[in-house]
Amino acid sequence: MSSVPETMFAVLQRHDGYSGKATGPAIADAADWLEGADIAVPAPGPGQVLIRLRMASVNPSDTHFIKGEYGQPRIKGAPAGFEGCGDVVATGKGADALMGQRVAFVASGSGAWAEYAMTEAMMCIPLRPDISDEDGSAQIVNPMTAMAMVDIARSEGDAFVVSAASSQLGKLMCALGRDMGLKPIALVRRTEAVETLKAHGAAEVLVTTDPEFLKQFSTLSAQMKPRVFLDAVSDQLSEQIFVAMPNRARWISYGKLDAEVPKLTQMGQLILMGKRIEGFWLTAWMRDTPPTDQARVAGEVQARFADGRWKTDVSVHVPLRDVVSDLADALKKPDGKVMITP
Amino acid sequence: MSSVPETMFAVLQRHDGYSGKATGPAIADAADWLEGADIAVPAPGPGQVLIRLRMASVNPSDTHFIKGEYGQPRIKGAPAGFEGCGDVVATGKGADALMGQRVAFVASGSGAWAEYAMTEAMMCIPLRPDISDEDGSAQIVNPMTAMAMVDIARSEGDAFVVSAASSQLGKLMCALGRDMGLKPIALVRRTEAVETLKAHGAAEVLVTTDPEFLKQFSTLSAQMKPRVFLDAVSDQLSEQIFVAMPNRARWISYGKLDAEVPKLTQMGQLILMGKRIEGFWLTAWMRDTPPTDQARVAGEVQARFADGRWKTDVSVHVPLRDVVSDLADALKKPDGKVMITP
Repeated sequence: MSSVPETMFAVLQRHDGYSGKATGPAIADAADWLEGADIAVPAPGPGQVLIRLRMASVNPSDTHFIKGEYGQPRIKGAPAGFEGCGDVVATGKGADALMGQRVAFVASGSGAWAEYAMTEAMMCIPLRPDISDEDGSAQIVNPMTAMAMVDIARSEGDAFVVSAASSQLGKLMCALGRDMGLKPIALVRRTEAVETLKAHGAAEVLVTTDPEFLKQFSTLSAQMKPRVFLDAVSDQLSEQIFVAMPNRARWISYGKLDAEVPKLTQMGQLILMGKRIEGFWLTAWMRDTPPTDQARVAGEVQARFADGRWKTDVSVHVPLRDVVSDLADALKKPDGKVMITP
Repeated sequence: MSSVPETMFAVLQRHDGYSGKATGPAIADAADWLEGADIAVPAPGPGQVLIRLRMASVNPSDTHFIKGEYGQPRIKGAPAGFEGCGDVVATGKGADALMGQRVAFVASGSGAWAEYAMTEAMMCIPLRPDISDEDGSAQIVNPMTAMAMVDIARSEGDAFVVSAASSQLGKLMCALGRDMGLKPIALVRRTEAVETLKAHGAAEVLVTTDPEFLKQFSTLSAQMKPRVFLDAVSDQLSEQIFVAMPNRARWISYGKLDAEVPKLTQMGQLILMGKRIEGFWLTAWMRDTPPTDQARVAGEVQARFADGRWKTDVSVHVPLRDVVSDLADALKKPDGKVMITP
């Protein structure tokens, strides 16, 4: 560990535990939740690795988490950030095979928004040299989620609905659906996004802000019979979309972009039409899916980035020391991900 | 068919199709939905049987149906009523094995609230002589639903929650749960029902009108970890019960006794805690479950009524000719089912 310093700059969580609220991933000022500081570089324990950060990506789960609205409690004073890529510079017992490798990772021991991150060896995927740092730093959360969710959609038929389809994840799911011979129905907020989504693989694109949207969706739903709704928004409009879907439809929520609390206006549809409402969380999927299946999915993901079928659109790079001041504004840019660099 | 008259008295539906509303099973005046009249006795087609009614039971699905809020459209001028028992007095081609038998039935060709009902032979269960007409007329909808739903509960652990547990179906599920070595948690509205439910097999009974109810339920939920909530009410309190249940909880709605529209206040629980919301409908279960499994369940049901483990509590008998005037009041009595007699 000769080249590893004793201290590092990191972006730290300012609060402990859960907030008990459900306000969505938007933040007005990152300083409400985060602060920059120099702290000790962590030492990897058995099965863990220390990673010198190359780049970290910002996902909605990151802002959910720092606000105390995610599936695990915050730790005040610990670095924020789940996902990134970097070089393994130190390893604990049993993890030395990764020493010196460039890896994509999800942080589990010490967060990704820091000069050094720490995680379990099993949360790392060694990166092929033909994968860029941009693609490498957004290799796990979105792509694995897309793979797993489109797989669920495929099990129920050919047509499926994707909300917030202009997101990186939405585009991945449309492209993946098309490649599998399925028919993704993309829902977007802005008319300008329609052509982009068609180019990305959507069979149909509807604009949710159109006053005729629900009528258009009902017509399309009756024709194409989508059984799965992969939903990042989970507001009242989501419920109305679900209501307009056919028998046996599954509303699968994987995000809560809108803080609006949806009402279940047609409870009887669950009973009489065999519909159901459920969630998807990659963490649970990784816990419940055998490692060999996960490795196969990870290999497919990397092949797609390597040959250019998939690409990570970047809206802006924010240096680690500017995260507290600049993150809230950076996240307002609509197309692509915010990337954090050391 | 020498003993079968040409006309019969029947209680007819006054409306066609669906109402498009969701107001629950309560009715203020049956005359809004039903009228009595003499109509032709139907003739059974291939696979069908004609049944001289002995007794019909009134289920919430009957009032949902006549109000146009059920899973199949109303037919104006056709007799109402799903379930009953009676004697097969005429048979269509292929159904003659049932001629002369006393059967429990669910009507599919012509409703049960009539002197004669018609249905498919496969919707009839021949009754053992030691089963009373009261038990025979409530042999299918509630008991089969109880069997199927408690089976789902058993697949997820030992504790499960039953709302509106003072209903016939609620009591059946508590008794069945106890007999299977499970721990039914019964929810009732009235303190007076607590001892009855304990006697019927509930491991715990909570009173939903107690101001401390949600606190009591949360404590119990943390101790007993029920994963399945069999819910006939489906209102906002149901949602709060679901929210207080542990990881992987399933809210299974099988009725909408309260017209209140529930809000999903903790959508994130579906994502992060693997919870889900679904429905149960006996009609769908019968469509999706192999006949041999259904026959086994029907045999178990009948054995339970024959040996006295199960019993149908009757609140009041209403003659067919008084249904239009008396049904709404009869349904207000809290304990037991309303039975219709010719």
